[in-house]
Amino acid sequence: MTDDPRLTPLAASLPATVPFVGPETQERALGRRFDARLGANENVFGPSPRAIAAMRDAAAEAWMYGDPEAHELRAAIAAHHGIGPEHIRVGEGIDGLLGLLVRLTVGTGDWVVTSLGGYPTFDFHVTGFGGRIDRVPYGADDRADPQALIGCAVASGAKLVYIANPDNPMGGYHDAATIRTMIDTLPEGALLVLDEAYVEFAPEDSAPQIDPSDDRVIRFRTFSKAHGLAGARVGYAIGPAPLIAAFDRVRNHFGLTRMAQAGALAALGDQDWLDTVRAQVAASRDRIAAIARDNGLTPLDSATNFVAVDCGGDGGFAKAVLAGLVRRGVFVRMPGVAPLDRCIRISAGTPDDLAALADALPLALDEARAAT
Amino acid sequence: MTDDPRLTPLAASLPATVPFVGPETQERALGRRFDARLGANENVFGPSPRAIAAMRDAAAEAWMYGDPEAHELRAAIAAHHGIGPEHIRVGEGIDGLLGLLVRLTVGTGDWVVTSLGGYPTFDFHVTGFGGRIDRVPYGADDRADPQALIGCAVASGAKLVYIANPDNPMGGYHDAATIRTMIDTLPEGALLVLDEAYVEFAPEDSAPQIDPSDDRVIRFRTFSKAHGLAGARVGYAIGPAPLIAAFDRVRNHFGLTRMAQAGALAALGDQDWLDTVRAQVAASRDRIAAIARDNGLTPLDSATNFVAVDCGGDGGFAKAVLAGLVRRGVFVRMPGVAPLDRCIRISAGTPDDLAALADALPLALDEARAAT
Repeated sequence: MTDDPRLTPLAASLPATVPFVGPETQERALGRRFDARLGANENVFGPSPRAIAAMRDAAAEAWMYGDPEAHELRAAIAAHHGIGPEHIRVGEGIDGLLGLLVRLTVGTGDWVVTSLGGYPTFDFHVTGFGGRIDRVPYGADDRADPQALIGCAVASGAKLVYIANPDNPMGGYHDAATIRTMIDTLPEGALLVLDEAYVEFAPEDSAPQIDPSDDRVIRFRTFSKAHGLAGARVGYAIGPAPLIAAFDRVRNHFGLTRMAQAGALAALGDQDWLDTVRAQVAASRDRIAAIARDNGLTPLDSATNFVAVDCGGDGGFAKAVLAGLVRRGVFVRMPGVAPLDRCIRISAGTPDDLAALADALPLALDEARAAT
Repeated sequence: MTDDPRLTPLAASLPATVPFVGPETQERALGRRFDARLGANENVFGPSPRAIAAMRDAAAEAWMYGDPEAHELRAAIAAHHGIGPEHIRVGEGIDGLLGLLVRLTVGTGDWVVTSLGGYPTFDFHVTGFGGRIDRVPYGADDRADPQALIGCAVASGAKLVYIANPDNPMGGYHDAATIRTMIDTLPEGALLVLDEAYVEFAPEDSAPQIDPSDDRVIRFRTFSKAHGLAGARVGYAIGPAPLIAAFDRVRNHFGLTRMAQAGALAALGDQDWLDTVRAQVAASRDRIAAIARDNGLTPLDSATNFVAVDCGGDGGFAKAVLAGLVRRGVFVRMPGVAPLDRCIRISAGTPDDLAALADALPLALDEARAAT
């Protein structure tokens, strides 16, 4: 298909690839539903019943646009963090907010720094706005390498330095002091993009105290993971007021649905549910690790709601294992580049989900071994 | 507040203004809820009960991301129009899709053409991507001026020519033959952006048959108006396959919520409900017109779910009338520029809504007259 001739040179230069193929697309290709949906780090334990009730109530009011200021939700998030609402920007998931941040700060040819094999949607946005990307390899401990990221930013004069803490796709984390050092050694003019999508699953010492007025860092949180509202698409940024205010110049003001705002507000108010989810996720991580070990594989430590499992071979072998799981109705994903791609990434699941995993994994492994 | 120094020159140049202030913001300022919410052209008659039920069911599944391809909804929309899904792009409302279209096609300094006083969110996006805007005055009949728009595009070499048909904010429409002539006289390299947000309320002859492969035009439809799902944020584009495909390079792939997809799919399947809504809107338009006439004002003919009412004075007078209505709990809006701003714009409402309007309007008029 020939490109539309009216595309801008930048748009015409962009690849047709997309960051993630959805599980529904794979289900359509397979001709069956997945038995276990463990590939997108969704929260199978679901949102708070209060969030579901709030969304159900809001459905009848769907004829009204959502409040473009998301005033109540923004105020509640600010109160939750003990800071002013001028430091909070609510948006259509971290994905949407990352896109807006990149649009605001990255012009054609500007450099950003991220990790090789890190979150591809960040790269998607940077490329989409004409930025250039330095990708720093993960350390030997399968964690992003903070000082190498900073060193790279110093060298290139990067506008943005991205790190996910806890890490996706490998699941580890850096302690608060390490993140604090990143901020303190960030070169002048750079902004640390601290993606904390999984922070609610991590040990207490993973999230540094950061003055929200500190103009060296913007952090992102989401209702898609621990709060179980991936399908409602609500994330938020915490950052310095001038940067947070700038989002108003470019965002889709009425983009946040009425149901999403109501659901997120109720979810935030149900911290007991969050505790329940955390306990279920921790038990599920242990079970995934046990299943991996039972099959002679090595689970990596996880501070998230997923476990990266080292399949003990190269990327081709892990890919074959993954394909065998998918064919057997177990949806999982894997990192895209070496050496991370020796692993498959399995999200926390219900006991039934993990029973399906335990059944399928030995068969998938046998098949993968036979093929190599 | 000083701008963040890391903003791109373009981002730093953008105004802090937003296209629309939401009614909730006004309610917070007033310290009361509106009695009648008639300012945002929402559909007070609500979505199909089947759409509400579908969204309520989907709420419990909100832990899953929405299908990033919106496959079912896209297929249903395509079938509804009797065309292939490769001509359909579903997104976060027409607002979101317009933003993506502008991003794909308008680079810094590129010209677009629209009407002076037309839909401000289109202008917001064009400015936001560094485009330049020619604004063509409405004709004396309070309709956008098709041949003047085309003439302007010929002169400037515009990439995009925007027209809403039926028109917002004035409510009139052009017949299909006129739109067809616009397409046929469009200069080489230009794209007609045909915003049909209100088309379901308009006479049959307002929407031309357009071959979806015709690369001179992209049209936009929404579930926010006739389908009553403004708060779910679903719109779609119909256009040539290469242009529709290009959206994949820049869109927020998981941006459409699970509830929104389910609700829109159910709404599309309930055309009987749409007929009911159309009848209610038609009756409401008549009642608004009667209330206007009872107060010595002139209602404009409408092919939409709102009525522009000529208050018989200048913009300052209409603004005073509007302020009097708002103070009395009746939310309405008005066009932003002369001569359109002699009007206020009143959305179709329930009998209770219009009773509130009928009560408030004479008082607001007396007040406005006393002040001038």
